[in-house]
Amino acid sequence: MKTLIVHAHPEPKSLNGSLKDLAVSTLEAAGHEVRVSDLYAMNWKAVVDAADYGPEASDRLLVARDSGRAFEAGTLTQDVRAEQEKLLWADTVIFQFPLWWYSMPAILKGWVDRVFTYRFAYGVGEHSDTRYGERYGEGTLAGRKALLSVTVGGPEAHYAARGINGPIDDLLFPIHHGILYYPGIEPLPPFVLHGTDRMTDEEYADAAKAWERRLLTLESTEPIPFRPQNFGDYEIPSLQLKEGLEPAGRTGFGLHVRG
Amino acid sequence: MKTLIVHAHPEPKSLNGSLKDLAVSTLEAAGHEVRVSDLYAMNWKAVVDAADYGPEASDRLLVARDSGRAFEAGTLTQDVRAEQEKLLWADTVIFQFPLWWYSMPAILKGWVDRVFTYRFAYGVGEHSDTRYGERYGEGTLAGRKALLSVTVGGPEAHYAARGINGPIDDLLFPIHHGILYYPGIEPLPPFVLHGTDRMTDEEYADAAKAWERRLLTLESTEPIPFRPQNFGDYEIPSLQLKEGLEPAGRTGFGLHVRG
Repeated sequence: MKTLIVHAHPEPKSLNGSLKDLAVSTLEAAGHEVRVSDLYAMNWKAVVDAADYGPEASDRLLVARDSGRAFEAGTLTQDVRAEQEKLLWADTVIFQFPLWWYSMPAILKGWVDRVFTYRFAYGVGEHSDTRYGERYGEGTLAGRKALLSVTVGGPEAHYAARGINGPIDDLLFPIHHGILYYPGIEPLPPFVLHGTDRMTDEEYADAAKAWERRLLTLESTEPIPFRPQNFGDYEIPSLQLKEGLEPAGRTGFGLHVRG
Repeated sequence: MKTLIVHAHPEPKSLNGSLKDLAVSTLEAAGHEVRVSDLYAMNWKAVVDAADYGPEASDRLLVARDSGRAFEAGTLTQDVRAEQEKLLWADTVIFQFPLWWYSMPAILKGWVDRVFTYRFAYGVGEHSDTRYGERYGEGTLAGRKALLSVTVGGPEAHYAARGINGPIDDLLFPIHHGILYYPGIEPLPPFVLHGTDRMTDEEYADAAKAWERRLLTLESTEPIPFRPQNFGDYEIPSLQLKEGLEPAGRTGFGLHVRG
């Protein structure tokens, strides 16, 4: 595998830092190629602004259009072009981050906002009666897999089907489906550690073993079976799921998972 | 009302900028006090790091603990303390932002990550057999209301109950419930504009009228009826919703809305 690890934690000696280091050593020892985007160490610029698009930034900035123009003209900033190149190089992308306020840290959201430009990650492909662009299962990054490795402070019960925080699968859906599957990446079931604010050495040893097992079986792990957009499950152009495709009682985000 | 507007768009002449300006003029003309945190204009630092906690940052940074210590010691950075003070001053908070990759722009997520410190927004209140801290309906910011004003590029159908992007209420749940209701703020139903990538002057005029109507009726608008945590609906400490409280067929995030 060619694995890109995108890492988002300010403390190298944190649990997230340890899991990232373990991923590098485990994958390399197994003969895989690994590259790391350690966003804090890179002092990653988190905020989209006109400077991202160089001469393609219009006087009244239009984020989608201007980012697409800069992508096509090759005038995106060097940091963004380097990340796009890493994504094209990789066949597997691992995101290592703590769940902060039920989503990714701002520095990682800023990586998505800046790297996933128009014409690269969205605004790709033609629209017709049978296709609504290349997205959700198709797109620039098709053929790649991704894995979220997420540390969560609270206990697992709070993120269960009836837990007050909401089910973890639903909290991660906007990342799995909206960010990754949209430009064609197939997300694998996530690696989630709970109760990480109070982890003992013994618990860490168990977590590290489980993480190594996940890393060494990535190639044989089935992705989350999201429904591709342009293959008959959705009305076009309303992109509503056709009636009757889902198991009885399935609603919400879960509609977009097959079976 | 005392209204704080938190605004997150890089272009002052954008739709978001216009909606923010209209909110200021409409509310002030109606006799309300308004303060604005224009995050791009403030050059808001989006990224949590050790510099946020001054002398309270430990050698191995622990974000929750160190942010709580710095909050209690009064050594948080001036920019963060100013935002906490504005939140305590306000009775109503409006968030104006574009939906980027199914969530808020990184600069706004970074406002949450940095301003919502331990002991201010979480880690508040005692734990007992009947209470699990002050959160979800209680907390430092109880008594306040909030409104998300969100611009969405795609059409409304794609965000409907069966739409491919997922229902907009579910996409906003982690913000409404996880970020706002958690420290006690009551979120109002959001103001969402769709199809904003291709808005005509006529459509903008209609949208502006609808926005003025929402702004002038904020005080009589009922909040989203989320279930408070410590008043009998949840098992403690598992924080699972007790069986049988929800309408038949309700699952997922919707479990945490009454009625």
